[in-house]
Amino acid sequence: MKERLYLYDTTLRDGQQTPGIDFSVEDKIAIARMLDEFGLDYVEGGYPGANPTDTAFFTEKRTRHARFSAFGMTKRVGVSASNDPGLALLLQSRSDVVCYVAKSSQYQVRVALGCTDEENLDAIRASVEAAIAAGKEAIIDCEHFFDGFKANADYTLACALTAFEAGARWVVLCDTNGGTQPAEVREIVGKVIAAGIPGSHLGIHAHDDTGQAVANSLAAVEAGARQIQGTLNGIGERCGNANLVTLIPTLALKPNYADRFETGITPERLATIAHLSRSFDELLNRAPNAQAPYVGASAFATKAGIHASALAKEPSTYEHVEPESIGNRRKVMVSDQGGKANFIAELKRRGIEVSRDDSRLDTLIAMVKEREAEGYAYEGADASFELLARRTLGTVPDFFSVESFRCMVERRFDVNGQIKTVSEAIVKVVVEGEVRMSVAEGHGPVNALDIALRKDLGRYQSEIEDLELVDYKVRILNGGTEAITRVLIESQDASGARWWTVGVSDNVIDASFQALMDSIVFKLMKNRELAGLVAAE
Amino acid sequence: MKERLYLYDTTLRDGQQTPGIDFSVEDKIAIARMLDEFGLDYVEGGYPGANPTDTAFFTEKRTRHARFSAFGMTKRVGVSASNDPGLALLLQSRSDVVCYVAKSSQYQVRVALGCTDEENLDAIRASVEAAIAAGKEAIIDCEHFFDGFKANADYTLACALTAFEAGARWVVLCDTNGGTQPAEVREIVGKVIAAGIPGSHLGIHAHDDTGQAVANSLAAVEAGARQIQGTLNGIGERCGNANLVTLIPTLALKPNYADRFETGITPERLATIAHLSRSFDELLNRAPNAQAPYVGASAFATKAGIHASALAKEPSTYEHVEPESIGNRRKVMVSDQGGKANFIAELKRRGIEVSRDDSRLDTLIAMVKEREAEGYAYEGADASFELLARRTLGTVPDFFSVESFRCMVERRFDVNGQIKTVSEAIVKVVVEGEVRMSVAEGHGPVNALDIALRKDLGRYQSEIEDLELVDYKVRILNGGTEAITRVLIESQDASGARWWTVGVSDNVIDASFQALMDSIVFKLMKNRELAGLVAAE
Repeated sequence: MKERLYLYDTTLRDGQQTPGIDFSVEDKIAIARMLDEFGLDYVEGGYPGANPTDTAFFTEKRTRHARFSAFGMTKRVGVSASNDPGLALLLQSRSDVVCYVAKSSQYQVRVALGCTDEENLDAIRASVEAAIAAGKEAIIDCEHFFDGFKANADYTLACALTAFEAGARWVVLCDTNGGTQPAEVREIVGKVIAAGIPGSHLGIHAHDDTGQAVANSLAAVEAGARQIQGTLNGIGERCGNANLVTLIPTLALKPNYADRFETGITPERLATIAHLSRSFDELLNRAPNAQAPYVGASAFATKAGIHASALAKEPSTYEHVEPESIGNRRKVMVSDQGGKANFIAELKRRGIEVSRDDSRLDTLIAMVKEREAEGYAYEGADASFELLARRTLGTVPDFFSVESFRCMVERRFDVNGQIKTVSEAIVKVVVEGEVRMSVAEGHGPVNALDIALRKDLGRYQSEIEDLELVDYKVRILNGGTEAITRVLIESQDASGARWWTVGVSDNVIDASFQALMDSIVFKLMKNRELAGLVAAE
Repeated sequence: MKERLYLYDTTLRDGQQTPGIDFSVEDKIAIARMLDEFGLDYVEGGYPGANPTDTAFFTEKRTRHARFSAFGMTKRVGVSASNDPGLALLLQSRSDVVCYVAKSSQYQVRVALGCTDEENLDAIRASVEAAIAAGKEAIIDCEHFFDGFKANADYTLACALTAFEAGARWVVLCDTNGGTQPAEVREIVGKVIAAGIPGSHLGIHAHDDTGQAVANSLAAVEAGARQIQGTLNGIGERCGNANLVTLIPTLALKPNYADRFETGITPERLATIAHLSRSFDELLNRAPNAQAPYVGASAFATKAGIHASALAKEPSTYEHVEPESIGNRRKVMVSDQGGKANFIAELKRRGIEVSRDDSRLDTLIAMVKEREAEGYAYEGADASFELLARRTLGTVPDFFSVESFRCMVERRFDVNGQIKTVSEAIVKVVVEGEVRMSVAEGHGPVNALDIALRKDLGRYQSEIEDLELVDYKVRILNGGTEAITRVLIESQDASGARWWTVGVSDNVIDASFQALMDSIVFKLMKNRELAGLVAAE
């Protein structure tokens, strides 16, 4: 019989404190749906009354399964609960739960509230009672709990006990400044339980200011707490909150937790958490963190030759959990460091079979090492690698060739004396023996070249209509403007597929051209593979 | 009397395993210097013999104070230490230390090595003895230590004890797959010490696969280990290694560690760790993580709201440590009071005096904010900032103006059918009313523009003879080739002075041009300052 752990998401409230993140009502509706469908127990929507967005968001209940929680402050000192307009807004909101933030540090009560210890306790009691009277579940976030406890344990405990005795379902211990260490969390949670609040009513709210929000949350659970507050991808004020996307797989897959506890997240849902994490970044319009635990693109990627050979023999030798269990996948990368096993595994994943003693494999490995010495980085450009491999091992059709190109950037004062910069590119391509010239202007020479290059590819034109450049990276490999330039380009098409290509040259335009060419050829090849026509070409 | 903790950096070795990161020899030299000057105890440089870069890097000793460590495998089974070419390369390298990775899990010995338990123990013993005989310090990284211990504690302990008894200075317990939890680390480290290896000879090597590399490292220290292995900004294979940039401030500033332990990092050095972290990202040409513990731009940032007012009253109410102690700054997004003080300080540092209520100061602050919103990054371009400030507050002479420029890049097949790319630039400058045109070819359009621009500046020409471009960085601020491009250029002159300038545009040539212009004008201004002639202009 496993104990139940409750997951409380505060992405829409504490996550909203992340510098650079501002949710619209539509964002919040979309995120609430994601969280609800994923199976979290509580979704905190924000602070009705604090701003128009949150007030509008709470005009409806936004979850089906999860309990919908409204965050706010305990009643103001000096007015009764029934006469506090802020409290009224909380109680009128369409939430199932009210989560109050309450001062629980004597120092904070003095400095920030400027009221007496007793007045603060009264505010906690009255606010909890008011929520219950309004038919809502009451939760107390004890702000600065750990710092307060270290300074004056008696008063901090009094705040927590007052909330619990007044009927709060959860008393949440907040490490508001994020500086508390796991050993302190473990010890203090133990003392709170000893003081009379059962762990089944205790929650933990951790911040990542020392990089230990996850560890602090787990330490609290080990000490008896049964509710964890966190956010998607660990967004939140300053360094962020405890990352639920990291915590949930650990609770579900690590025996020391999985054997004792269960959450509302089914194995089927867990297998969608990588997708959840990426969709959330997509919504935030930011690049996912490749090194994110469990869900990052690199979380199961191996570069080292010594590891890769063992990994090929038996995956579990270098994987702490199965990538599939969280909807991620294994990636054995090709690189300067890689051994033969990397190459075979990586080619196999691309549907390219080659035997260990095939001399073309040695040619490919030699070529990759040589080119990486020149500055190419194939582990970051899988499409260019696949093209190189297929050219070496199999056949890639010569779809078209570029006879020449010319880029021109001119900056001068226009007739009105305004500085004007014009970029223009001209390309001459040969498709099936037929020469085609295209010219285009663009934002900068690379953009102009990209547009001109894709303007007229004859019979292939229709195939690349949905080809789109989504990212462009330039790295100078050695100092000075005479340096070698590496360009990485990410492309995508209507199918949603994304691929990286690379180009290297002492000339940024040249390097960009190589990467653009690879991207187009890869797209054409990909279309044929799907159509199973590679052989037919 | 505090106990000494030793810090072992593996940025150049395990960090090299990070997908997308490939260090050149020059990169490694620069990073080794940063680490050495910062005060780390050990700098692991890589794996001599594994690839040409690392072999070249180990032809010299690359550190002054830190012990310089070469990583490699224990001797191959079946050959004697003296007949193992890989081992020979390690022993011949210019390192003070050899750090061997040794299998310490029976399962791994069977699956990955395919040799007997005894053969592996012999390899460990012989390899440690060979390093000591070669006059080097020997360290053993026990790969898969924790997983191995859980499966078969006796054999895993035997591997560690064999290394220790053979004379290894450090036996490092590696959580190779990164799945071990802090409670397990604490328990197992305790058992290793009980088995006879003193904590003063134990190290911890943690990975972040469950987001707890920092917590695992600290758990090991609490259990008795006295060496910590990690990397700058937590780069490393898969999800990365323990982040030294997070660990070091915690060890130095959190009483539960600071009261018991000391490291080689002085408070003065600690106050440069934010700079160290950002310089490293700059070198990797990637955007720093704003939410990074301690050093992130958001680590001490507070959004408008309930916290900001309290923070204004008393900073310690919402800060777990003082930002200055790690060279970071407080950011309260509601008032720019903090901002104003920072500006005055920045300007003073450059010998520019301005009073708090000088309206030109407000103009400058507004301008910087506006331009940083456009993508300029003055933190990384001090010369461009100083120019902007002097233009706003004082006077910068109009040395010369550029009427127009034109860049052309052409790629075609030459008479011999070889692909040939030519870059050419033409600039029209006006010096003292006199128009001068210059044309130049270069490696790429920016290099051509640079050469043409500096070809004929009339009376100023002689002053810029010693001006030299030493680094050039391009970052795309938003995806796609239509993205906004930020160019950073580092210049130096014969005096050894170095300065950074910045340019931003949707056109990489335009952005480069701005940065090149700032660099030349800064150099001319600098010359006059030195000559004390700014007023005279």
